[in-house]
Amino acid sequence: MPTEFTTPAVILNEPQLAENIGAVARAMANFGLRDLRLVRPRDGWPQDRAWASASGASWPLDGALVFDRLEDAIADLQVVLATTARPRELRLPVMTPREAAGDLYAAAAAGRATGLLYGGERAGLETRDISLCQGVVTIPVDEKFRSLNLGQAVVVTAYEWGVAVLDGPPETFAKNLAAPAGQEALQGLYGHLEGELLAAGFFHPPEKTPGMINNLRAIFARASLSDQEVSTLRGVITALSKGRGKVLEKLAAKRAREKP
Amino acid sequence: MPTEFTTPAVILNEPQLAENIGAVARAMANFGLRDLRLVRPRDGWPQDRAWASASGASWPLDGALVFDRLEDAIADLQVVLATTARPRELRLPVMTPREAAGDLYAAAAAGRATGLLYGGERAGLETRDISLCQGVVTIPVDEKFRSLNLGQAVVVTAYEWGVAVLDGPPETFAKNLAAPAGQEALQGLYGHLEGELLAAGFFHPPEKTPGMINNLRAIFARASLSDQEVSTLRGVITALSKGRGKVLEKLAAKRAREKP
Repeated sequence: MPTEFTTPAVILNEPQLAENIGAVARAMANFGLRDLRLVRPRDGWPQDRAWASASGASWPLDGALVFDRLEDAIADLQVVLATTARPRELRLPVMTPREAAGDLYAAAAAGRATGLLYGGERAGLETRDISLCQGVVTIPVDEKFRSLNLGQAVVVTAYEWGVAVLDGPPETFAKNLAAPAGQEALQGLYGHLEGELLAAGFFHPPEKTPGMINNLRAIFARASLSDQEVSTLRGVITALSKGRGKVLEKLAAKRAREKP
Repeated sequence: MPTEFTTPAVILNEPQLAENIGAVARAMANFGLRDLRLVRPRDGWPQDRAWASASGASWPLDGALVFDRLEDAIADLQVVLATTARPRELRLPVMTPREAAGDLYAAAAAGRATGLLYGGERAGLETRDISLCQGVVTIPVDEKFRSLNLGQAVVVTAYEWGVAVLDGPPETFAKNLAAPAGQEALQGLYGHLEGELLAAGFFHPPEKTPGMINNLRAIFARASLSDQEVSTLRGVITALSKGRGKVLEKLAAKRAREKP
């Protein structure tokens, strides 16, 4: 077991209240997390009220990075799990906080960069955001009252991370995990594939395009693709799309010949 | 496994901020807890701000009971665990939130009335408060930042309760647990014992009296005494103290005889 490993980043997507960002920082500090990332915080950044509500847990706030796009906030991470209470259509693995902590700890102990993603207070996470992740963490809340406060969602998952570290390396740690590609490489793959599919007229009817894209991304997101596999798949896309181009050229040539 | 059992009461001792009481209610509702008890809330009760911060989880607040004394707030409970981050001198069992949830669930499933006690935001719990409990729950926080927000302490322990219920009855459920006495019976025992010890000049030096009392209470608090055992012990105290009285009478009579 390595004595040093990278703790999961906490990514807040469109957080609204600075008080809640402070509460998140405090919960992170309680369980040894440090790397806070904010995507489009509603009221801008920095906000004094965040520091006030962190009760002295200032270091995650001092070092917080701000991003315009979720894609950029997770670009350097290899395993990102989305925390959401809502069951989703996406075919991504759904984990309990305990299972997620075990998986993240195994990944971190194997040298992977990991993250936990949380949605804003009002809207939570969109399917599009979740489709960028490798899995979903669902906190087992009572059906009568499912609405978890942002800080409380973070404290439950951070607590399980802390317990996982205290309990020591999980059994999966011994597995020879293939190094998964980073999110940036995955996003390159998505863009390549979606661009070619758009050109090929794959997305039909147009109003279903976002859902089709999300479902496609989830397939690759959960597959733990290595960098080599991402390269291979991009080669496949290139081959298929160029092949299609050649077919189209041949068809056009044929029609040209048939017309007098 | 019984389909119905009594969920643990959440007892807040001297809570300060109504917002935190609301956050506690929300965390309770997230994990199926209902029975909220407040001991000397600083700003009185009810407080509109509690309902505002509960985000719709109003029923624990609507039904909250207010007490002047912690002893009264827990009088009807048979197993009470104190949540505190600080290691204490008291010889009470110290549990993780997971172990505590398992114990509470086993007790609840066996028909016991249970509770979780939390201190106020500033002072936490006094040793005197903890000595009234059957055990201590310590949330494994990072040593660099131990200060847990009240609502976050409640959500971690409530979450573990919810997971314990979802996981089903623990192995200890099968044990033939002897029904422990309620706190009211225990408090009667403590009062009886301490009164007699005071009369006997046991507490010496006087400034150590509170600590000596706390340590004595903890012995009986953790022993899971049944009602029958409490009665037996009270009989023991009566016998000992009356016996001592008789000895004193005899000594006095002897001295009277010796003095001319």
